[in-house]
Amino acid sequence: MKNQAYRMALLYDFYGDMLTDRQKEFYDLYYNEDLSLSEIAENYGISRQGVRDVIVRAEATLTELEDKTGIIRRFHVMQDQLKGVLDSVDAIAKRNAQLYQDSEIEALTESIASVLEKLKQE
Amino acid sequence: MKNQAYRMALLYDFYGDMLTDRQKEFYDLYYNEDLSLSEIAENYGISRQGVRDVIVRAEATLTELEDKTGIIRRFHVMQDQLKGVLDSVDAIAKRNAQLYQDSEIEALTESIASVLEKLKQE
Repeated sequence: MKNQAYRMALLYDFYGDMLTDRQKEFYDLYYNEDLSLSEIAENYGISRQGVRDVIVRAEATLTELEDKTGIIRRFHVMQDQLKGVLDSVDAIAKRNAQLYQDSEIEALTESIASVLEKLKQE
Repeated sequence: MKNQAYRMALLYDFYGDMLTDRQKEFYDLYYNEDLSLSEIAENYGISRQGVRDVIVRAEATLTELEDKTGIIRRFHVMQDQLKGVLDSVDAIAKRNAQLYQDSEIEALTESIASVLEKLKQE
């Protein structure tokens, strides 16, 4: 399961609140705190298989949500497009700096770049 | 229920695929085809209350998904920010047209505006 850690982190970020409290707890211990299944099992006094079932079910729920809604996929498309926009804004800023040194255009390109940088991180 | 039609359309667009086939069917007839509960009931040979239950449950599922993930809310914040970016790009385009008539800046602002307009519609 852990070879999917990056994908799972992304899914969890978007859809984690759809999980039950117990699923969230085990998921967090396993993926974020990096405990083993056996360690979690011991802490909670249940079987290793029991822990595994909870996490596998949580992953199935997260995966199903994305498969059906495609929301993360849509976000990624949007992020790619924002990156393209940012490149164009940089090109405007450079051309302005070289040829016109227009302070208004400079301020506008800076404000756009700052908004886009923030959006890209979300 | 129908006074929430706009909100429901938005929820359905994002999360509709999480509904069962029957929920989707009734939802579509009720909200998109604008049939009454009684008309749907008659077509399917079930009670009006039965149809109502299916739709109410579908709405509850959609609402819960958004309450828990906040994805549509996040999209709206992003849309607002993109609108701000678009306004700044327009300001650059106008200033360029007035003062410099730089064809490279013109092409860049046009390409940015076209990408952002598309993103705003998504």
